[in-house]
Amino acid sequence: MDLAEELAAQQRSISVAEFFEKNKHLLGFDSPTRGIITTIKEAIDNSLDACEEAEVLPDIYVGIKRVDKDVYRIIVEDNGPGIIPKQVPYVFGKLLYGSRFHQIKQSRGQQGIGISAAVMYAQLTTGVPTVVISRTGHKSKAHRFEILIKTEQNEPQVLKDEEIDWDRMHGTRVEIEFKSTLAAKKKLIDYLRYTAVVNPHARIQADIDGEKYTYERAVEQAIVPPKAIAPHPHGIEFGQLKRMTDTSKDKVKDFLINGFSRVGEKSADEILGIAKIKPDRKASGLTSDELKVLLDAMQTVQIPPPPASVCLSPIGEESIVQGIDKEYELDFVRSKTRKSQVFSGHPFIVEAAIGYGGKLDGDGPGQLLRFANRVPLLYQQGACVITEAVSGINWKLYNLSQQGLPMGPVLILVHVASTNVPFTSESKDAIAAIPEIQKEITLALQELGRELKNFISRRDKNRQVEERARAVCAILPDIAAKVSEIVEKPVPDVTPLEAQIMRKVVVKKRVNNETGKTEIVINNFTRNAVTLTLYCMSPDNAADSLVKPDFTDTIGDEFNIVWKINVEPESSWKTEFSGTAHSTVSVRGVEEKLLVVVDLAGI
Amino acid sequence: MDLAEELAAQQRSISVAEFFEKNKHLLGFDSPTRGIITTIKEAIDNSLDACEEAEVLPDIYVGIKRVDKDVYRIIVEDNGPGIIPKQVPYVFGKLLYGSRFHQIKQSRGQQGIGISAAVMYAQLTTGVPTVVISRTGHKSKAHRFEILIKTEQNEPQVLKDEEIDWDRMHGTRVEIEFKSTLAAKKKLIDYLRYTAVVNPHARIQADIDGEKYTYERAVEQAIVPPKAIAPHPHGIEFGQLKRMTDTSKDKVKDFLINGFSRVGEKSADEILGIAKIKPDRKASGLTSDELKVLLDAMQTVQIPPPPASVCLSPIGEESIVQGIDKEYELDFVRSKTRKSQVFSGHPFIVEAAIGYGGKLDGDGPGQLLRFANRVPLLYQQGACVITEAVSGINWKLYNLSQQGLPMGPVLILVHVASTNVPFTSESKDAIAAIPEIQKEITLALQELGRELKNFISRRDKNRQVEERARAVCAILPDIAAKVSEIVEKPVPDVTPLEAQIMRKVVVKKRVNNETGKTEIVINNFTRNAVTLTLYCMSPDNAADSLVKPDFTDTIGDEFNIVWKINVEPESSWKTEFSGTAHSTVSVRGVEEKLLVVVDLAGI
Repeated sequence: MDLAEELAAQQRSISVAEFFEKNKHLLGFDSPTRGIITTIKEAIDNSLDACEEAEVLPDIYVGIKRVDKDVYRIIVEDNGPGIIPKQVPYVFGKLLYGSRFHQIKQSRGQQGIGISAAVMYAQLTTGVPTVVISRTGHKSKAHRFEILIKTEQNEPQVLKDEEIDWDRMHGTRVEIEFKSTLAAKKKLIDYLRYTAVVNPHARIQADIDGEKYTYERAVEQAIVPPKAIAPHPHGIEFGQLKRMTDTSKDKVKDFLINGFSRVGEKSADEILGIAKIKPDRKASGLTSDELKVLLDAMQTVQIPPPPASVCLSPIGEESIVQGIDKEYELDFVRSKTRKSQVFSGHPFIVEAAIGYGGKLDGDGPGQLLRFANRVPLLYQQGACVITEAVSGINWKLYNLSQQGLPMGPVLILVHVASTNVPFTSESKDAIAAIPEIQKEITLALQELGRELKNFISRRDKNRQVEERARAVCAILPDIAAKVSEIVEKPVPDVTPLEAQIMRKVVVKKRVNNETGKTEIVINNFTRNAVTLTLYCMSPDNAADSLVKPDFTDTIGDEFNIVWKINVEPESSWKTEFSGTAHSTVSVRGVEEKLLVVVDLAGI
Repeated sequence: MDLAEELAAQQRSISVAEFFEKNKHLLGFDSPTRGIITTIKEAIDNSLDACEEAEVLPDIYVGIKRVDKDVYRIIVEDNGPGIIPKQVPYVFGKLLYGSRFHQIKQSRGQQGIGISAAVMYAQLTTGVPTVVISRTGHKSKAHRFEILIKTEQNEPQVLKDEEIDWDRMHGTRVEIEFKSTLAAKKKLIDYLRYTAVVNPHARIQADIDGEKYTYERAVEQAIVPPKAIAPHPHGIEFGQLKRMTDTSKDKVKDFLINGFSRVGEKSADEILGIAKIKPDRKASGLTSDELKVLLDAMQTVQIPPPPASVCLSPIGEESIVQGIDKEYELDFVRSKTRKSQVFSGHPFIVEAAIGYGGKLDGDGPGQLLRFANRVPLLYQQGACVITEAVSGINWKLYNLSQQGLPMGPVLILVHVASTNVPFTSESKDAIAAIPEIQKEITLALQELGRELKNFISRRDKNRQVEERARAVCAILPDIAAKVSEIVEKPVPDVTPLEAQIMRKVVVKKRVNNETGKTEIVINNFTRNAVTLTLYCMSPDNAADSLVKPDFTDTIGDEFNIVWKINVEPESSWKTEFSGTAHSTVSVRGVEEKLLVVVDLAGI
């Protein structure tokens, strides 16, 4: 046997499951730590996609349970439309099997790889089959499967398939068990939180080895699901065109009109005119050379961009603000949804938001939240076009210091939605540096940056005004007392004076000299009723408060006492409780420029 | 039809060819510019691997020809063992088909994806079938194929298969035609050069759209091909172990000894003792739970590391130095091949080299050459563990300034050889940050850094000595003339005096006062013959030189005149040519400490 024969004997076909088993890091299974996050991400992607298609408000349960020293069981359950029994083994037990690969529309999952990879990872590290329960509606019973993957064939192996009773009307539950650790728990919680921010229509409950987390809906409306569109003439290559004509029964003009987005009578005639191809030729009869000319002509003719409003589903400015507001309590949030654009024939939309102040950490770099098709990107921040765009902006123009990222209590969110997000790797961690995308991100953030700058300058100015007002209010009672002493009259009520100084909501905290108690008074000098939340951080628990607090937290060894209060115009509210020590008050729910907080213990 | 049924109707299997056609950037086909480099890289990888297996000294031809405004034909031809006709369509027309995927040994290609992806890229962008010619020996005729890929099935489509006459006795030639540009020509030439450096046994000739490049062999010995080894007990997971036992006919003790590297009688007994499994049980009869216990026991027992010397093929310190020396002309090159190490059960070896001075650019950062399994890594330098290791070293300790990378005329080469190089992505651009690998790189470079530091200090000292000697030699003739004038004797020959001052090779350039010509004299005062290359950069072309130059280049508007000279001990060599202007001489081939260059026009 000569050498070529010998070498030939070793040649063989490799199944895609074998390939990804060996290269599991390409799918985000490069470490036990990451395995949990990747699996939950893939399962939630599928759940959210399915709920979207069914126009159901997603209700997702995530469970993580340690079942052995280094083995965890991951559970994800949704209220989606369910999967019909004969498909379940393929969806979970075969890589590269799915419904969204060939569709041109925005979706989280596309390749039909993710969840099967998790099943394979379980089989590889523990050998435990994955359990799937799915039910498609009240008329059918739920099915419970135990599934493995025949790696050499990339085909599912069903160990068990039984009908069971399940209290859910419809939905899917998957249980996967593999070697892992919870070392990256913080990252996992970040992932859930970020997912909640960009999917404000979803409710996510999690039980992470006993600890419960709930992310409530911020929006009570299901997303209108994006619809698949035909390819755009500017976004296809020769090979695709050839496959399309090969299987077409149309005449070439109808082929162009029916097969492509945005091609009508006029564009089709124009294309065929330039290509010098008769409109009534059969599309399947065109030679390779004719197809090349046709493809060139398709690129030459002006054709409107693909119908992004149909195939894309941006989150929307209002929902982004609500999502951020619910999860972070900030002094400033603005968001911007840009108009759709196109790269290489693929439509995309950039959305961005900037948040500032509140409880964000004022030291160090700001937070950057990256998203693609409503999915948080947690790894490879440095390799992502979003990071590149953010670092490329001169944030000093917007009153923020900068070291690559802007510094200080700032949060930046960027969402790229596309029918074809150009990820840098199959683990979908970072978006490639496509110039068109980078430009859109930059423009969105620059616009928001200008608004942030206005806010910061206004706040600084308000602070001055407020400080001046606060000084006047602080001194007024003393002046009144002094004057009353001199003129030997009773001390007058200075409140109307305060109101004259400023038509504002004045919150005053002081220690009452007579009772020795802490007193908080709110005067609404504006012309409208206000609804506000009053927070008092105190070493005392305010148990004897005149107005019972709505709730009381402990933070460290201090109490955070919270009242939710409605004050009519020209009215006031008051409470008093035992405690003289260093308490501080703060207020949310009143526009900053209308609010004066006079914390007399603090002065 | 309910929604689940509706969704099910859209589900389908995706072929791996479809997957990679849509995600071609994952394989390095993300831009026309990169397409050429990726294709040539994949083809050369295959050629070098095949030649290695056949123990043939590789002789590779690379051709790039523009055939239309944006269409290039890429040709790669080798003298390897050839591919038997019935395999050719699969090797080039089916993704995930190959011989090396399941073998545990160092090789360039592994997945059987690369070259088929190039065929697919051609079909996608131009529709032109790929031409493959292959011949396996003088007894068989060559076959010429025209191949496409049936994307939906990931199966080859053979348009033509004919026997032809081919003057090569054995080898393979591939011609691929796709849309591209030569915008990254510099990068392509870098790639060829780097490939030559780490494959000094290969000869590569390239014709890049008319420009010829040749990279000659530096080593005349074929590489001993690495051999596949059995998996190491510390490098497998449950799923793999289960597959191995499922197909084994051995008793469990023999299964361990035959199935794994480095497991002998003693280790096998020890493993089975800990696992409490009887040695004569059938391996295929073990339950999942028993396998888990067995796997744990395998991890517990001390087992020697995998036999790296068999399955890995490091380049070797000498070959690396020769490779670098041939392509760069440096003042200092040292290399280090570290002992083999293991990460997650995979053996690996780190080799490194540092070059300094010569024609390297003294401004800006040093050059970093990254290699994995003898393949240059050209992209994503920032994401690579090699870069991380280099930047993590304090180069100031070795007399180099540093801004991340060391600065100045320094070249750093790092080669990671492994049975399983942990690339960060399928395009194989960067190595993941495995701590074991990073540590080895750091240790190798630190050792070389110390040698470099010695060299730099010695050179600085030599420079002082040389400068002093040069000053003496320069003044000697004047002293002699003055003395002879005083004593009224003829001017003595001062050459023996120079020789006494230093047993060196003295190269002296001056303008002869009588003839007005440039004169270069070489005196070999050492006791050995020297062979050296003399370079003279001059605005004059030395056409009337007494000794005809071996060749003359032009660099900018200057001439670089080159003589290759042999000078016996105690002998001298001399030339003279017209030209008085600012010429400079330099010499290579003589140890620096033995060389004195006296450039009198330069003083």
